[in-house]
Amino acid sequence: MEIRQYISENDSRFMNELFSLIRIPSISAKPEHKADMLACANRWKELLIEAGVQRAEIMPSEGNPLVYAEYIISPELPTILIYAHYDVMPAEPLELWESNPFEPEIRDGRIYARGADDDKGQGFIQAKAFEYLIRHNLLKHNVKFIFEGEEEIGSPSLNAFLKEHRKLLKSDIILVSDTSMLGADLPSLTTGLRGLAYWEIEVTGPNRDLHSGHFGGAVANPLNVLCSMLSQVIDKDGRITIPHFYDDVEEVPAAEREMIAHIPFNETSYKAAIGVDELQGEKGYSTLERNSCRPSFDICGMWGGYTGEGSKTVLPSKAYAKVSCRLVAHQDHAKISQLFINYIQDIAPRSVKVKVTPMHGGQGYVCPIDLPAYKAAEAGFTKAFGKQPLAVRRGGSIPIIADFEEILGVKTILMGFGLESDAIHSPNENFQLDIFRKGIEAVVEFHQAFDTL
Amino acid sequence: MEIRQYISENDSRFMNELFSLIRIPSISAKPEHKADMLACANRWKELLIEAGVQRAEIMPSEGNPLVYAEYIISPELPTILIYAHYDVMPAEPLELWESNPFEPEIRDGRIYARGADDDKGQGFIQAKAFEYLIRHNLLKHNVKFIFEGEEEIGSPSLNAFLKEHRKLLKSDIILVSDTSMLGADLPSLTTGLRGLAYWEIEVTGPNRDLHSGHFGGAVANPLNVLCSMLSQVIDKDGRITIPHFYDDVEEVPAAEREMIAHIPFNETSYKAAIGVDELQGEKGYSTLERNSCRPSFDICGMWGGYTGEGSKTVLPSKAYAKVSCRLVAHQDHAKISQLFINYIQDIAPRSVKVKVTPMHGGQGYVCPIDLPAYKAAEAGFTKAFGKQPLAVRRGGSIPIIADFEEILGVKTILMGFGLESDAIHSPNENFQLDIFRKGIEAVVEFHQAFDTL
Repeated sequence: MEIRQYISENDSRFMNELFSLIRIPSISAKPEHKADMLACANRWKELLIEAGVQRAEIMPSEGNPLVYAEYIISPELPTILIYAHYDVMPAEPLELWESNPFEPEIRDGRIYARGADDDKGQGFIQAKAFEYLIRHNLLKHNVKFIFEGEEEIGSPSLNAFLKEHRKLLKSDIILVSDTSMLGADLPSLTTGLRGLAYWEIEVTGPNRDLHSGHFGGAVANPLNVLCSMLSQVIDKDGRITIPHFYDDVEEVPAAEREMIAHIPFNETSYKAAIGVDELQGEKGYSTLERNSCRPSFDICGMWGGYTGEGSKTVLPSKAYAKVSCRLVAHQDHAKISQLFINYIQDIAPRSVKVKVTPMHGGQGYVCPIDLPAYKAAEAGFTKAFGKQPLAVRRGGSIPIIADFEEILGVKTILMGFGLESDAIHSPNENFQLDIFRKGIEAVVEFHQAFDTL
Repeated sequence: MEIRQYISENDSRFMNELFSLIRIPSISAKPEHKADMLACANRWKELLIEAGVQRAEIMPSEGNPLVYAEYIISPELPTILIYAHYDVMPAEPLELWESNPFEPEIRDGRIYARGADDDKGQGFIQAKAFEYLIRHNLLKHNVKFIFEGEEEIGSPSLNAFLKEHRKLLKSDIILVSDTSMLGADLPSLTTGLRGLAYWEIEVTGPNRDLHSGHFGGAVANPLNVLCSMLSQVIDKDGRITIPHFYDDVEEVPAAEREMIAHIPFNETSYKAAIGVDELQGEKGYSTLERNSCRPSFDICGMWGGYTGEGSKTVLPSKAYAKVSCRLVAHQDHAKISQLFINYIQDIAPRSVKVKVTPMHGGQGYVCPIDLPAYKAAEAGFTKAFGKQPLAVRRGGSIPIIADFEEILGVKTILMGFGLESDAIHSPNENFQLDIFRKGIEAVVEFHQAFDTL
């Protein structure tokens, strides 16, 4: 049976299976969802067995368990290791969702739910492409699956897991569907990812909340201090001021900037899609460069003082922020993390106590476009989408991709099917059904092209 | 009966009566406490009747009702109008209280509860001093009481109420117990108060929370922008940068600075009491000047983005702050409010939308120390505390004091009995029992000295 017919005939079963995964709120950031993590891993194990793997098992790690599965034709044949993650981001703010984030709903040709795209939907594409190949006796190489449950919190246990199971995970190429394309009509493959460093900052002023009338003006206010410190991290040209921050940043080569300038990109539509009148970023770089090849600094969350209704005149005792830097290839996240901590401690006034806690981090990644597996992915996209995909660097981070290279010594092909409008990590995350179907087709074609290249 | 004996013999009744007021959580900032406001007003009405007023009534306003009571000996005699407020601040953060904020507990000679000092405890001092005078036939002038229920939210309805009831509230002097003394052994009368302007700021960036990897560096982050704007409000010398902000600020006269320099003040103890290593404020001014005679700018609350457990890499759609300025005499709060709004709109980048909402505001106040009523207050303190009180300006705001002057044409005597250690507006607010008792004595003496001066 042709792949398109197979997808069409199995449509309702596919939806039921995917929905059963989505309904499990596997939010790795929240300890109260511990039981959901195991439930979701088990559901993946069942689905992989039904898809046709020879064996599948839940493997413990220091944190949430991983799902491992394999189909080994012969140890002589090349092996593709497919990675996905079964955990999802928190769904807050819940009031902005139009339907329950954990009860998937199909509206206007899209599945709406937390994880519909990232990464349950995309992981499911891999499982169903594999199922098709197995059921039609078309698989000519070995396939291994590894699905983890901590990607959204920075994969704290994966590093040790990879080291412990190097042999089990032995492979020739890793395939990951967890990235986006430039557009529904603009297929693309991701050849670069940004790294990440993340910190939580706690500023302590007085030992209790003070009356701002009695103390205001004479005692340092932790919120004032935190605003002042964080505002110093970026200068008026949008450059990060942390000393030595740019030391290892490779300037984008002129040829690549030329290529980026030719990517069809409509700034007006981009602004309209996110509802802003003007874009803002580092001086001297275009928007596409700023969000993919250049580092950034964002305050992801901040809180302190009175945040309820009405007005309370208080000089708060504490102020907090969660902040992160996106890093580019060659910037080491551990080194950057320390530079940031030193910098903040350096600019902190003696009138407050400042604690900076490094949270998760990961290195950037670059994939050479002359790899045979890359060519196979290109062929898969071309078949499914009817045009050759562009090779682009993206701004997101999948810190483990660099770990795969370092620990397993294997390159990764980033064959992702997301769209900007999928709103991953945001309320009303969704996944376009036609892209979902083309994705399965593209992966099927990738496996077949892989055998010939 | 002597006043000290009267206080001693009625001690347990006084506590029961005061506790019955405190147990009503009359939090004006929270709409869900609407019913508690009326309950508390009614309880005050009952207590004033029991204390001996000729009539007492609940009077409606545009917001929470007011309690009015009077004892008129003769229209020919001078009239003292006693003001207090029956509303309290929110008690959050609740986890920092050692006992229930609305179930008063006596520990180590202090009453612990929200409102124990501010302003139920202090208002109660006035009621009990009046009761003593009536029961011993010692009152020689008219007394009126007006207790409001919106002081902690800026008295939004009092202005109109004063205008409507000018005749009813006709008086020669107003007496308010809602301020603090320099110390338990350092009695003082407040002769100046700072004004207040308060705003809420909402910064909107993209129309939804964005993935900080895909958009970070290319799209303005509302939290970054808000930090940057707020950090610009104060310069490195601790001066407020809003154009024309200092236009109407009177420099503290040299003679007054000299007096302030002689107020016993131990900076080491002050820092130890609030747990900071170093103080911080406007260059060129002392701590006591900074917190009383100079304006200040504080971020009272701030929030936005992901504030839960773990790390979420998000570029938030919204960022919020509640900010306030303490103002000094001659600075008009409405003018300052507009200057701030203009300034923030002026420095806001076009990459975000900024909305600044003025919340409550009030003018500063100065009381001349040669007023006969001020002299009477001085005499009352001297009798009760055994030493002459110092005349000091304080940093807090009671915006209505300026309204009394403007609308009723009457000066106010600020005869407050709080201490810094009372932790008003903070967790574990408390009121020292010996000060409470001396307060009643001081007010009794004030009334008697008033008749002779």
